[in-house]
Amino acid sequence: MEVDGTFLTILGITAGIFILMGWIEQIYKGYKTKRLKDVSKFLMIFIAAGSILWLIYGIIVDDVFIIGTNMSGLILMIIVLGMKKRYDMHAKPS
Amino acid sequence: MEVDGTFLTILGITAGIFILMGWIEQIYKGYKTKRLKDVSKFLMIFIAAGSILWLIYGIIVDDVFIIGTNMSGLILMIIVLGMKKRYDMHAKPS
Repeated sequence: MEVDGTFLTILGITAGIFILMGWIEQIYKGYKTKRLKDVSKFLMIFIAAGSILWLIYGIIVDDVFIIGTNMSGLILMIIVLGMKKRYDMHAKPS
Repeated sequence: MEVDGTFLTILGITAGIFILMGWIEQIYKGYKTKRLKDVSKFLMIFIAAGSILWLIYGIIVDDVFIIGTNMSGLILMIIVLGMKKRYDMHAKPS
């Protein structure tokens, strides 16, 4: 398919921003409620593992959007994981 | 970087499988506990929106791994979102 490079750039950046906004919202919600008990830690661990591989993939195919999204996503997931660990320890049973 | 296509294939497939395993684990955990209250619905909505754009991106750059991961991820996220909606309605206050 023949497509304008600018369109691809906008698409890649917007897709990346959406995914990062999702994780930021999860961080905000967790911070507000001080609860992340229902969030599976394996969700973060598996997606982080996948992101590391996507990162390598992105470096090899030299795709800056794959690299950027996965690198920032990885950082945000580590934050959620750390918050979860902390909140789960102090959590009231529900 | 010059890399074997087989390596890229394995990398792409493994990365995709990890990400899907993460969502499947979240579905399993949610199903078991019947609770998804701490999971931000915007996490799913934003990541789903991002996945749709990645899907378009994948179709344009003709990358089967981007297409596959995002299409299956999208389906799994819709399942989690549906489960959350149902469980949140019947949830006991905590």
